[in-house]
Amino acid sequence: MKSAEDARRFAFVQNAAGRFVPTEVNGRTETPYQGVHAHRPTGRKAAPPIPNLADYPARDSKLFPDLHTALEHCGLRDGMALSTHHHFRDGDLLGNQLLDTCAEMGVRDLRWFPSASFPCHAPVIRHLESGVVHHIEGSLNGPLGDFCSRGRMRGLGVLRSHGGRAQAIQDGEIHIDIAVIAAPTADPFGNANGVHGPTACGNLGYALPDAMYADKVIVVTDNLVPFPALPIQIPGHYADCVVVQEQIGDPAKILSGTTELTRSPDRLYIARLVAEFIRDTGIMKDGFSFQGGAGGISLAFTIFLGEMMKQAGVTASWIHGGTNKYLVRMLEEGLCRALVDGQAFDLDAVGSISRNRNHVSTSPLISYNYHAKGNFLGNLDVAVLGATEVDLDWNANVVTHSDGRLLHGIGGWQNCMLAGCTVLAVPSFRDRTPVIVDRVTSLCAPGELVDVVVTERGIAINPRREDLRKAVRASRLPVRELADIKSDVERLCGRPAPHPVLDNVVAVVKWVDGTVLDSVRQIPG
Amino acid sequence: MKSAEDARRFAFVQNAAGRFVPTEVNGRTETPYQGVHAHRPTGRKAAPPIPNLADYPARDSKLFPDLHTALEHCGLRDGMALSTHHHFRDGDLLGNQLLDTCAEMGVRDLRWFPSASFPCHAPVIRHLESGVVHHIEGSLNGPLGDFCSRGRMRGLGVLRSHGGRAQAIQDGEIHIDIAVIAAPTADPFGNANGVHGPTACGNLGYALPDAMYADKVIVVTDNLVPFPALPIQIPGHYADCVVVQEQIGDPAKILSGTTELTRSPDRLYIARLVAEFIRDTGIMKDGFSFQGGAGGISLAFTIFLGEMMKQAGVTASWIHGGTNKYLVRMLEEGLCRALVDGQAFDLDAVGSISRNRNHVSTSPLISYNYHAKGNFLGNLDVAVLGATEVDLDWNANVVTHSDGRLLHGIGGWQNCMLAGCTVLAVPSFRDRTPVIVDRVTSLCAPGELVDVVVTERGIAINPRREDLRKAVRASRLPVRELADIKSDVERLCGRPAPHPVLDNVVAVVKWVDGTVLDSVRQIPG
Repeated sequence: MKSAEDARRFAFVQNAAGRFVPTEVNGRTETPYQGVHAHRPTGRKAAPPIPNLADYPARDSKLFPDLHTALEHCGLRDGMALSTHHHFRDGDLLGNQLLDTCAEMGVRDLRWFPSASFPCHAPVIRHLESGVVHHIEGSLNGPLGDFCSRGRMRGLGVLRSHGGRAQAIQDGEIHIDIAVIAAPTADPFGNANGVHGPTACGNLGYALPDAMYADKVIVVTDNLVPFPALPIQIPGHYADCVVVQEQIGDPAKILSGTTELTRSPDRLYIARLVAEFIRDTGIMKDGFSFQGGAGGISLAFTIFLGEMMKQAGVTASWIHGGTNKYLVRMLEEGLCRALVDGQAFDLDAVGSISRNRNHVSTSPLISYNYHAKGNFLGNLDVAVLGATEVDLDWNANVVTHSDGRLLHGIGGWQNCMLAGCTVLAVPSFRDRTPVIVDRVTSLCAPGELVDVVVTERGIAINPRREDLRKAVRASRLPVRELADIKSDVERLCGRPAPHPVLDNVVAVVKWVDGTVLDSVRQIPG
Repeated sequence: MKSAEDARRFAFVQNAAGRFVPTEVNGRTETPYQGVHAHRPTGRKAAPPIPNLADYPARDSKLFPDLHTALEHCGLRDGMALSTHHHFRDGDLLGNQLLDTCAEMGVRDLRWFPSASFPCHAPVIRHLESGVVHHIEGSLNGPLGDFCSRGRMRGLGVLRSHGGRAQAIQDGEIHIDIAVIAAPTADPFGNANGVHGPTACGNLGYALPDAMYADKVIVVTDNLVPFPALPIQIPGHYADCVVVQEQIGDPAKILSGTTELTRSPDRLYIARLVAEFIRDTGIMKDGFSFQGGAGGISLAFTIFLGEMMKQAGVTASWIHGGTNKYLVRMLEEGLCRALVDGQAFDLDAVGSISRNRNHVSTSPLISYNYHAKGNFLGNLDVAVLGATEVDLDWNANVVTHSDGRLLHGIGGWQNCMLAGCTVLAVPSFRDRTPVIVDRVTSLCAPGELVDVVVTERGIAINPRREDLRKAVRASRLPVRELADIKSDVERLCGRPAPHPVLDNVVAVVKWVDGTVLDSVRQIPG
C-alpha cells in the first residue's frame, strides 16, 4: 500500500470543476470529476465469493464468544479493510472496540471504512499513530478530521456521501474484507435489526451494502433472540459470525450535535423562511415530498412547514431522511403518508419504526445510490441542507471550514443535491466568518445543483432556476441576489483573510458517481 | 445454442448417486452430483452491469405504454433468456402474454426461466413448436411436462428447486437478460409489492433474485400508485421499465390443485399420523418450527398439528412455507410467533401479510439458497412433503410419475430436505401404482436425507435416524419397515411392470448445489 507521501507524488489533473485532483488514491486509479451527469460507469458490480451452506452446518455454528475469536475465524490479517456503521452516531461503542481488539491481536495497516465517524471515535487516533490503522475512508469529524487535516494520517482520507459509499462498495471500488455490524437485536443465524432490544437504534440500512458485499460479516449484538429475529433489516444469510456482548452502543447519544434542534432566534428565522419559501413557490402541495438533513436549521424548518401544511390542509406523500420526533408527529397526525427512514435521529424515531407500518427503513443502495436505475432522491421534491460555505458560482462545501480543517462528513448531503429543489439553509456568517465566499475551500456540490440559499439576510435563488424566481415574484419573501448578501456580510465582518494551506493533499472529496471532485490540503500546525 | 439432439450426443458420466447424467446441458458445462454436501463452489457471484442514474433522469422515465415497447426498450432479441415468477400460480396471465408478445415481435430461440410453470401455461407449447421459445428451464407441469417428456422440446428441461433457481441466478449459472415481474402494486419508480391492489397475491419474493441479477427488469402492474409503493418487496432501483395494463393475474386461481386440502379419508388419516409422529417424537415442543409443503396431505397435517399444539399448550417459534388460512389462524391464535412466507397459497394468506406484522415475506435467496452462509431451512425442525415415489434406499422422486412423465415441479421440496427432520407423507399407492418402488424413476432427493415415510399403512423411519426410531418406541404409532409396507402394497396392486423409456435424455434434475442429480428420459408416444 502506498503511503500518503507516495500519494502526494502522483499526477494531479484539473477536473471538470477546475479543481486539481490526484489520479491515484490509496493505491486505486481514480477518475477525475467530469461533470454532474457526465461520467458513464462501465463494468459490473462487485461479485462476492460464492458461499457454501456446508460451511455453516449447525444451527449455532455462527456463534462466537467474543469479537476476538470471530475476527480470528474471519482470517483477520495485516492490511485488511474493516467496516462499521454509524447508526449509534456519537453513541457507537463498536468502532473503538473493534480497532482496540485488532491492536491487541497485533495486526497492522488496517483500513477502516465506517459509514461515518464521530467525536466518540477520537481514540482511533492512537491506532493511526501506532500503525494499527493505516487510514480511514469515511467521514472525518472533529478530532479525526483535525488529525487528517494536519497531514498526520498515512493514507488519504476519502470523503464519500452515504450514497457514494454504497456505490463504491457495490461497484467494488471499496472491497471490505470484514464488516462488523452492531445489531441491537439478532438471532444465532445473523438476522439483525435495530428495532428491538435495550440498545434499539432504529434502522440498520447503512450496514446493508457492507453485509451484501463484504467477504466476511460479523454481527455483534447485546440482545440475542431465538430465530427468526424480526423484522429482518440485515438478512442472516450474509452473516458469518454472531457475537454476543454486554453493550454495543449508547442510543441516548444518537441525539447530539447535528441532530439537535437549533435554539438560536436567527436560525429559527432562517428555518421559517425556508418553510415559507417551500409554501410560496407552490412546492408545498398535496402529495409533495421533502427531506430535512441533519443540522439545527434543517430540523427546525420541518416544524414550521408542518404548521403551514396543517393550515393549508396539505399532506405530503413521503418524507425522507434522518427521522426525528417532529417527523414522527407529522406521520402520526396524517400530515404525510410515509416516513422513509435512513437513520433515526432520536429515540422517538426509533420507537416509531417499530410502531408505524408506514415508517419504513431504507438503505443507501436504493435511497441515494447514483449507480442504480434511479434512486429515491430523484423522486424527492425538495431537500433542505446545511453547508459550511457557498460561493458566488453556487458551489457548496460541507466538509471543511474556511480555515481548511476537515470537520464534517458528507452524509446524504451530496445525494440530496439531486432532489427537485435543493435549499441550503445557512447563517450568513459563523463566528465572524462569512459563509458566502468567493470560492469554496472544498468543492462538495457543483453550483448547478444548488438552487436556493436561505440566510437570515434573505433568500437567494440560483439564476438557473428562473422557474423558482418566477414562482416567488409575487410573494413577500425577502429574495435577494447572493452577491448582495455576501457584500452585506463583508461590510459587517470584514472580508475574510485567506487561510494558509500547504501543498500536500490529505484527503479527497468524491462526487456521487465515484469520480474525484476535489482535494483537501494539509493545514499548518 | 445446441439442440437437444446435440445434447444427447454429449458425454454422460455416472454421478455419486449412481445416475448417468450429461456433462453439458443447453451449452453449459455441468458438474455431476458429488454427494449431499460434497461439491464445493468456487468463484464469485454474478455481477450485473453497473447502472447509471443519468439513464433514468425524469420521474416518469420508466413508464412504458405496454409490454411491447418495454421489451423493445430492453433490447429484446433472438436467443435471450426471459424470466417470470409464479406467485399467481395457475392464475398467471403474464407468462403467456410475454411470449405471445415476443412472437408478435418476431424474435426466436428464447429461453424461458419461470420460477414455476402451471397448466395455464399450456399455450407456450405453440411457441416451443414455432421456434419462438427454444426451451424452458423451470418446473414442467402438466401439458408442458408431457411435451418435454415426449422429446419435443429442442433444449433440455432443467428442473431446479426454488432454492436451486435462486442459487443458479446468484451464481451466474443462469443469466437472465430480461426479467418480467407481475406486480399487483407498483409505483412509477418500480417499487413493487403483492400486498395491495385488486390482484394482490401476497409476496413477490420469488422474483427478487431475478430483479437483483437480470440485466433488464420490467415491472408490469395493474395498480400503479404514487411513489413510494409500500411495502417494498421488489426495490425500484432494480427496475428499468414500468408497464401498466388492465390485469396481470387472477388471484382466485392461486388456490388450485396442489394448494387444496385433501378430502380423502385415507389421506386425512396420513395427515393425522404425521401430526402424531411430530408430537410423539417430541419434535413438537415449545419454540419448534415446521414447514408444510404444497399438496393436500401436507396442508392437512398442519390442522391436526395445530389441534395437538393447543391441547398440549405448545407454541411454535415460526412456520415456513407456502402459507394458507390454516397457518394464518395459527398465527392469529398465538400458536406460532411468526409466519415466514415464500408464497401465498390462498387469499387468506394474502390478506394476512398486509395485516399481521409477524407474517413476513421471504425470498428463496435467504430461505432456500444452498450457496449462502446458511439458510432458513437449516434452522427448521421438521418439513412435511409429498412425493411421487420413494424407494428402499429412501431415495425420493417428486418430478416424474412411475411412467416417466414429467408432471411436477420441485418447488421448495429439495430445499426442505435440509430440515432437521423430513417426512414424506404419501399414500402407499395411487391408481393402483405403488409409491414405494425398487428404484425411483427420477432421483430428486438422496435417501440419506429422507427421514420418515408416512403412509396409510404405517410409518417407516430411515435406519439412519436411530434417534427418531427410539423416540417413538413407546408410542402407539404404527411404525413398520419400509420394505414391509412395500410388500403389502404389491400384494394388493401387483408388482408394477417397468415402464418403457427411450435412451434420449429430455431433462435433468439439479441438486440444490447446482450439480446434476439425474437425467429424465424420453417416453414413447
